[in-house]
Amino acid sequence: MSELSLLIGDKFSSSWSFRPWFLLTVAGIPFAEDAIELDRPTTRETLKSRSPTGLVPVLRIGDLAVWDSLAIMETIADRFPEKALWPANADARAIARSLAAEMHSGFSALRTVWPMMFHRRDLRHLTMGGVQKDIDRIETIWTEARDTYGAGGPFLFGAFSVADAMYAPVISRFETYGPVDLNPTCRAYMAAVKALPAWAQWATEASEQAHARGLL
Amino acid sequence: MSELSLLIGDKFSSSWSFRPWFLLTVAGIPFAEDAIELDRPTTRETLKSRSPTGLVPVLRIGDLAVWDSLAIMETIADRFPEKALWPANADARAIARSLAAEMHSGFSALRTVWPMMFHRRDLRHLTMGGVQKDIDRIETIWTEARDTYGAGGPFLFGAFSVADAMYAPVISRFETYGPVDLNPTCRAYMAAVKALPAWAQWATEASEQAHARGLL
Ligand SMILES: N[C@@H](CCC(=O)N[C@@H](CS)C(=O)NCC(=O)O)C(=O)O
Ligand SMILES: N[C@@H](CCC(=O)N[C@@H](CS)C(=O)NCC(=O)O)C(=O)O
Repeated sequence: MSELSLLIGDKFSSSWSFRPWFLLTVAGIPFAEDAIELDRPTTRETLKSRSPTGLVPVLRIGDLAVWDSLAIMETIADRFPEKALWPANADARAIARSLAAEMHSGFSALRTVWPMMFHRRDLRHLTMGGVQKDIDRIETIWTEARDTYGAGGPFLFGAFSVADAMYAPVISRFETYGPVDLNPTCRAYMAAVKALPAWAQWATEASEQAHARGLL
Repeated sequence: MSELSLLIGDKFSSSWSFRPWFLLTVAGIPFAEDAIELDRPTTRETLKSRSPTGLVPVLRIGDLAVWDSLAIMETIADRFPEKALWPANADARAIARSLAAEMHSGFSALRTVWPMMFHRRDLRHLTMGGVQKDIDRIETIWTEARDTYGAGGPFLFGAFSVADAMYAPVISRFETYGPVDLNPTCRAYMAAVKALPAWAQWATEASEQAHARGLL
């Protein structure tokens, strides 16, 4: 396998970057990290020259540039089958992919009204503009996944999978803008994700970056 | 394998429905088809009772409901490996997934300003609001895919793949609102997709439905 390198944005705000970073880190797959600050006058030019879409994340596998968080995570799962990054059970896998795809193109209220600010914990905010509907839907699908497929571990489909990486920024938002009223199943699930060393690592680096940029 | 059944919307307008329908049909995978008219007073209630997200498409595999076009197509590729619905070459597959994911969450100008109207061919329209930028990007990625990975056949990655199904509604839009000025590689690619019997079948049924609804 060629060397992996992940191009990401700022850790305190780049939710799409967080997903594949988290997947690789939790899975223990070595990769180089390469970051672009998203608020510089030169950002657009830099992104254009380094990303096929002008967006982050981008995964480089040797000379190959793979773009878009979901395609990157499918590709990681595909190239590291021994890491079992999708559920082994075919039905669980189909539902895990449904959850991942729903996040990828949905939940626009939550994503726009409650942007990720990983470095903040005290920003209680209203559930306006459809945010509550998105939260309700997330509670439903997390609970159904845990109840139906979660027996083998504390994550949505038991063992950690791409679906967990996909929803990790949602957990951050619930921390930043909440507390959000969720059932015990969802609270336990969030606690399991936040207990991962990779979570603490991203959180620390997000805070350091936010501090260096004068946001904390 | 349990029986497959695909819940879709109206064929003249439901672009997300078209993608997995086209994939299954081109691949020759048998499935039952089940349609919801998207403009009835009861549509919202019907969708709510029959789709986990209230959106189409939904694929039923026996009792299992799989939702979202991209998850549905990944699941079909996963369950029918003998159909080779992603490219066999790992690099090609990673790029095909990047293209599919970019379509899934992007090209919002093209998708909103030029909505799919499969039954219309004569609606020349402006490339306003970012549509030209989307067209340019599509020309770039189609051309790069064909030039780099297209040797084994007339489609984006040679043989027909999920990536072609993902972009099929774009070809319809280019027919409806164009003609769009594209390079010969892209024109030949579009012609190959439109030559598939599945294309003619969807087109005929879209026209019939549009006619029955007084749109033609
Ligand atoms: N669908 C893409 C979305 C990527 C995206 O929107 N990335 C943001 C950062 S989280 C970005 O690059 N924005 C560019 C900018 O801020 O200029 C994916 O899943 O990777
Ligand atoms: N991300 C979803 C999008 C599905 C979607 O937006 N479907 C539209 C029809 S093409 C829909 O169901 N609209 C509901 C309605 O019109 O009420 C997917 O890829 O399947």
